Amino acid sequence: MEPRVSLITLGVADLERSYRFYREGLGLPTTRRPAQGIVFFQTSGAVLALFPFEDLAEDVGAGWNVPRSKFTGITLAHNVRERSEVDQVLALAAAAGAQIVKPAGETSWGGYSGYFGDPDGYLWEVAWGAFDFNRDGSLKVT
Amino acid sequence: MEPRVSLITLGVADLERSYRFYREGLGLPTTRRPAQGIVFFQTSGAVLALFPFEDLAEDVGAGWNVPRSKFTGITLAHNVRERSEVDQVLALAAAAGAQIVKPAGETSWGGYSGYFGDPDGYLWEVAWGAFDFNRDGSLKVT
Repeated sequence: MEPRVSLITLGVADLERSYRFYREGLGLPTTRRPAQGIVFFQTSGAVLALFPFEDLAEDVGAGWNVPRSKFTGITLAHNVRERSEVDQVLALAAAAGAQIVKPAGETSWGGYSGYFGDPDGYLWEVAWGAFDFNRDGSLKVT
Repeated sequence: MEPRVSLITLGVADLERSYRFYREGLGLPTTRRPAQGIVFFQTSGAVLALFPFEDLAEDVGAGWNVPRSKFTGITLAHNVRERSEVDQVLALAAAAGAQIVKPAGETSWGGYSGYFGDPDGYLWEVAWGAFDFNRDGSLKVT
């Protein structure tokens, strides 16, 4: 098994709303449109997919279309190269309608980060510090 | 904002158990050990992190340490280059203790896939078909 996360799919309540948030608000690239039923964003490394919540639950199988709780147990992170970009990205997300769940601040691990919730409340940490970057922007962990 | 998912963090009930599953069971590379409190796996593109559920909730803020529901609304996918690898990876996961949530089968989009749940029930789809690969193993979506 090659070590790889190919795709992260978020089950969303309103595909059009989430598309606008990620495409127009955050500027993630895609050639897809919500009318196609699923939207894929090409990001470096993993692809981010938006798919209606019910459809995603149904794809897993019968019995999975149950209400989510407030905290999924999963967070995504967008790490930035410069500390000032944390504030910029959080401001961009807020302008696109995200809820700032945790304002940017110093972290226990010596970095600087904050969290926003996307239109469905999926959590993204925007973080700077602690990691080295590979040339393509992915993190180098050792 | 560069289009990038840097990190996917799973809040786990038992860090040692999840470490064994991903490190020894699936063979994901890491130099970290559970005693360090967080484990990072270098995968192509996004880093997969394991962090105790309570610690992750606390990192987000007060009021987030609430029970998860069965379906988080988020799925991860591991896409393979050859159809036969779907069965191989699902068998590997099952041997490591994963629950096979959906046995491999033909999909509506012309591929072949199945789902497993990791020790905390986080869902991974193992899938073949529909996508082209970049040389590094990441998916090319258009």
